[in-house]
Amino acid sequence: MSEAGTAPRIGILPAGPRGTLADVAGVTVGHCTLAAGEIQTGVTVIRPHAGDPFLDKVPAAVVVINGFGKSVGILQVNELGVLETPIALTNTFSVGAVATAQIRAAIAAHPGIARTTTSVNPLVFECSDAFLSDMQALSISDAHYDEALAAASPDFLRGSVGAGRGMSCFGLKGGIGTASRFVRIGSEDLMLGALVLANFGRMESLTLAGRRIGPALVQRIAARPAQRDDGSIIVVLATDAPLDHRQLRRVAMRAAAGIGRTGSYYGHGSGDVALAFSTAQTVPHAPAAGVLSHSTLAEPLLEALFDAAAEATEAAIIDALFAATTVTGFKGHTRYALVDVAPDWSELPA
Amino acid sequence: MSEAGTAPRIGILPAGPRGTLADVAGVTVGHCTLAAGEIQTGVTVIRPHAGDPFLDKVPAAVVVINGFGKSVGILQVNELGVLETPIALTNTFSVGAVATAQIRAAIAAHPGIARTTTSVNPLVFECSDAFLSDMQALSISDAHYDEALAAASPDFLRGSVGAGRGMSCFGLKGGIGTASRFVRIGSEDLMLGALVLANFGRMESLTLAGRRIGPALVQRIAARPAQRDDGSIIVVLATDAPLDHRQLRRVAMRAAAGIGRTGSYYGHGSGDVALAFSTAQTVPHAPAAGVLSHSTLAEPLLEALFDAAAEATEAAIIDALFAATTVTGFKGHTRYALVDVAPDWSELPA
Amino acid sequence: MSEAGTAPRIGILPAGPRGTLADVAGVTVGHCTLAAGEIQTGVTVIRPHAGDPFLDKVPAAVVVINGFGKSVGILQVNELGVLETPIALTNTFSVGAVATAQIRAAIAAHPGIARTTTSVNPLVFECSDAFLSDMQALSISDAHYDEALAAASPDFLRGSVGAGRGMSCFGLKGGIGTASRFVRIGSEDLMLGALVLANFGRMESLTLAGRRIGPALVQRIAARPAQRDDGSIIVVLATDAPLDHRQLRRVAMRAAAGIGRTGSYYGHGSGDVALAFSTAQTVPHAPAAGVLSHSTLAEPLLEALFDAAAEATEAAIIDALFAATTVTGFKGHTRYALVDVAPDWSELPA
Amino acid sequence: MSEAGTAPRIGILPAGPRGTLADVAGVTVGHCTLAAGEIQTGVTVIRPHAGDPFLDKVPAAVVVINGFGKSVGILQVNELGVLETPIALTNTFSVGAVATAQIRAAIAAHPGIARTTTSVNPLVFECSDAFLSDMQALSISDAHYDEALAAASPDFLRGSVGAGRGMSCFGLKGGIGTASRFVRIGSEDLMLGALVLANFGRMESLTLAGRRIGPALVQRIAARPAQRDDGSIIVVLATDAPLDHRQLRRVAMRAAAGIGRTGSYYGHGSGDVALAFSTAQTVPHAPAAGVLSHSTLAEPLLEALFDAAAEATEAAIIDALFAATTVTGFKGHTRYALVDVAPDWSELPA
Repeated sequence: MSEAGTAPRIGILPAGPRGTLADVAGVTVGHCTLAAGEIQTGVTVIRPHAGDPFLDKVPAAVVVINGFGKSVGILQVNELGVLETPIALTNTFSVGAVATAQIRAAIAAHPGIARTTTSVNPLVFECSDAFLSDMQALSISDAHYDEALAAASPDFLRGSVGAGRGMSCFGLKGGIGTASRFVRIGSEDLMLGALVLANFGRMESLTLAGRRIGPALVQRIAARPAQRDDGSIIVVLATDAPLDHRQLRRVAMRAAAGIGRTGSYYGHGSGDVALAFSTAQTVPHAPAAGVLSHSTLAEPLLEALFDAAAEATEAAIIDALFAATTVTGFKGHTRYALVDVAPDWSELPA
Repeated sequence: MSEAGTAPRIGILPAGPRGTLADVAGVTVGHCTLAAGEIQTGVTVIRPHAGDPFLDKVPAAVVVINGFGKSVGILQVNELGVLETPIALTNTFSVGAVATAQIRAAIAAHPGIARTTTSVNPLVFECSDAFLSDMQALSISDAHYDEALAAASPDFLRGSVGAGRGMSCFGLKGGIGTASRFVRIGSEDLMLGALVLANFGRMESLTLAGRRIGPALVQRIAARPAQRDDGSIIVVLATDAPLDHRQLRRVAMRAAAGIGRTGSYYGHGSGDVALAFSTAQTVPHAPAAGVLSHSTLAEPLLEALFDAAAEATEAAIIDALFAATTVTGFKGHTRYALVDVAPDWSELPA
Repeated sequence: MSEAGTAPRIGILPAGPRGTLADVAGVTVGHCTLAAGEIQTGVTVIRPHAGDPFLDKVPAAVVVINGFGKSVGILQVNELGVLETPIALTNTFSVGAVATAQIRAAIAAHPGIARTTTSVNPLVFECSDAFLSDMQALSISDAHYDEALAAASPDFLRGSVGAGRGMSCFGLKGGIGTASRFVRIGSEDLMLGALVLANFGRMESLTLAGRRIGPALVQRIAARPAQRDDGSIIVVLATDAPLDHRQLRRVAMRAAAGIGRTGSYYGHGSGDVALAFSTAQTVPHAPAAGVLSHSTLAEPLLEALFDAAAEATEAAIIDALFAATTVTGFKGHTRYALVDVAPDWSELPA
Repeated sequence: MSEAGTAPRIGILPAGPRGTLADVAGVTVGHCTLAAGEIQTGVTVIRPHAGDPFLDKVPAAVVVINGFGKSVGILQVNELGVLETPIALTNTFSVGAVATAQIRAAIAAHPGIARTTTSVNPLVFECSDAFLSDMQALSISDAHYDEALAAASPDFLRGSVGAGRGMSCFGLKGGIGTASRFVRIGSEDLMLGALVLANFGRMESLTLAGRRIGPALVQRIAARPAQRDDGSIIVVLATDAPLDHRQLRRVAMRAAAGIGRTGSYYGHGSGDVALAFSTAQTVPHAPAAGVLSHSTLAEPLLEALFDAAAEATEAAIIDALFAATTVTGFKGHTRYALVDVAPDWSELPA
């Protein structure tokens, strides 16, 4: 059993040195957090590499587990097999603003966009933070996206920050969580990282490392506000394994196993979406030759990555719950952190 | 043979009285057109019925023929099987602004959105008008969406208007086109209407009612600017036949046949997307009972609707070409209307 | 803690009176088991209702979680939204024989098939039992399908029977498992049942009711044969809730959560497929009218069915493990039942 | 205008030397034809290369345009991105027999299948020839598959042969058709070939090179048997361009444009399915290394292949109509070849 405040160990695979998405070399994460009164929201940006993804596109795939969601940019990722902007996370009503911010940023860097070259595909994922934040206020603007992008670093905060500021999970405070797993393939160690925007689940379902403490928690917090599972979860998986779009689609699908292990059944109102990308190689915007060379992992070796993807997704969700801090926001609504409401969580009956 | 300026007859099914999407009772269309110098763009809005689609949602389905596109809202339509806002069309870089405008409009009508009830799913389709309009200027704002919505009428303009203002098609001026077809099923006449935002195709491919005049046209306009098929086409199909989501998905797929008949092969850079909706019944936002009653057409009777969907799509594209007027815009670029550049189109060798 | 030999309780929803798929009224299951020396295989048939599904088709949907599988008939179920034969389960190399058997049976009942009316869509799901059975022997014939069909009953065996005879699961003996859950919606009790053909998973992953005993089990059985996760799982979900194809697709997707909770990550070589059907109403082969009336559950009420689908899937898998008996077959290979190899499973460290 | 009996030229791209699928080097086709009284059916086999596709798997993708079909093997092709058997075509009720024949053939060549290595994924596509052949007789057996496979050659017959023996198309005799197109990319010529099993369409829809002669033909043959569009079409596209699964999926989708140009709207009862494969490189069954090297065409260069795929599909369908010979079969039903019933087709009013 873990001590209070420490997340339980998830699974048996070894974690990377940071235990975060940034264990995949080159991946960085930045937040912009708005935390003032009725506005408890933000933007989180994931940069897949240190360069410009418009010039050096990144193999990627998106799997929609439950499509009650308003994310932007999925069509083109799945048609062309690459992403070409940083990955942005924000609240539901800000996808338009953040997509526009991504377009502005791409134009600023590449004045030829939609003139001498193609246009650009914004990529914005969302969950609703309407319980804690006045989502109707449409508080997010270009500057917040730019700030999150500028803040991107391999060292980044988790919990009630960035897009995770106002998110709820299992009737508790949710938000940003992350984890990583080493994947030993032959004599090589590959890395798989996960970052989640966790905003889903009924409290009654909560299952920590296999122990369903949700019902006990519900009894304890009898007065908690009624809570539909109308949140969502966004899972971003990164790996340095050389994978193509089809293989990344397979990896992304394994997020569903990790989500399920936390007690979720992909609720009706939950936009559950997973994106996987590979940092092993990029696709140039303007290829010098007509034929490109790639490497891909031999298919049976995906087995270990699938295991890691499920485990890292579960671990990242649990991390979000343990990293979160209690937040009070819109209309005085409060969402309590697990560690505040149940420091003795490990002793709750399952 | 048609006379100059009159579109050739497409297919053999009878058209409705208006020959437009609005032959499906209750459907209306409005435009907001920006036509000033370097800005040649706009918004087109389709209202599926006279009421509020958030309260009375409309069975719908989207099929992605080629996903090189940035449309917004498709995920949720295909998960829940309904649309809940008007359908908006605009240029590629304005999807964020128009999605936000739809959110604002829905909030204004329903202050409980994302507070006491669910959030709302914007539905915005796009094509790139970057050749004729300075798309980087991000000219579209809330007011343009509102104006297009307010203008919705069963009598609406076609051609170089609304979202179609700056669009190109087969190297000619494209834009908004529309058509309708009666579908006789047993002793009943059902109606199917199509509206397209036509912005696709290489001139060399252009095929009018089966006659491939594209190569002859290319020879005539030897000096035309080089043109990739990097446009897109959005097809909206409406019917008063009682169909559920799955059946509407089948209907929407038939747009691919209609597009193909005009010479297109769904170009690499073309976001070819079709949405179909039914006006026969709606799904209440807040159902009074736990079980809803529906009617659906017996499956084999879809045959006639499929025929009509393919034919109406082709006819709507041809309509867009014939309704378009020559437009000069960004950097002095001019896109010529077919009837200007080839009033003798019917005599061109095929 | 359960006593040895009794499966742990999964989840918190109440089970139906039988605790099987047959708690959904009208659903019956029959097996034909071949258990002789090197041949340890069989056929299991699920009849969705007492009538003839060709005449009275059953709303259904299939979700492919991992497509490393050879199941037959999925395309048409997902296009037309109904199934029209009983659902057959068998070994990988017998799908052809069983599909042909289904065709023969349908023709025998309806001599007009493919003559005066449409043809028929066989529906056969498979897992590989090659470890325990000589799958190359192609032992299954028409008669075995007919026998399983004739045996269909609301009271049916589980474990190492029918298609489950030679199946392995988490390196242990797998096979047929089943479970049911009441779903309270308003004042009404609806029923959801699950039946699985469980043939997936590495022993190391095995998680019983949240307790990962796999690693401890691996240590105990150090000499077990090396085992890839190259099996598969077929999940069949039935409900008496009135659902259409799209809603059933959503229900079927929740099988992925249940599978994930047992420790699986949908292994590379595992054909993980879920089908859901509703018994609330049927679609006539020859409709008397052009428009059919249906009932469907209001969408938000699916929430409770999703919960039940995930829980029943997990429970059915665990049931398969506990119902299984040790089997020795091809080349003397033995696959041990969990209760034989670990009667003290509940005391194994997790 | 063509002379009677000569198919009209389709499109403007140059054809390969043979004008068949076998213009893609290494691809061969074999038929086994059963033409005796009430049995007018057969098997056609396409070998993607001269070797063994189980050992050297072939990148491939399948697109389902209309899923009213019973084809076998699609799931796994789309999960793993390769095919591992020859491609078989036959009648609807023989897919089981042919799938089993493929399994037997694979086992014969590789006794370790499903023992020391994985099992094998049969790949069988079908159309219904029930009008001309007694499909209930289940006439196809292993030997017919073996015979078709053994007959595979770059020189092969078209028309009323192999799986095409009993097929109907636009109310006329259909069957096997084929075409090829050069695709000039930079300074290189790539090849794309198409082979169709054409068994779809109402006569009224028939459109030859853009001329809709269907209605005139209907008038001429007033006494023709009523004909639903309940057939199907299988399109197989091969190319020597280096493409991965995702790119091949994009190429396969373009078959829909070619089908649409012949007048089809993908009829309700028509199983319209397209498979594309690349011969440029193979994926070893047992890779020597954990990381494989591939080449893929730069994405924008797919444009030319899409054009070719649409054109070759249309040309192959027209080829099937012109290559077909009149056949009389089951119950004395006769299906007339286009060239028999309308040698003056080029003069029919459109």
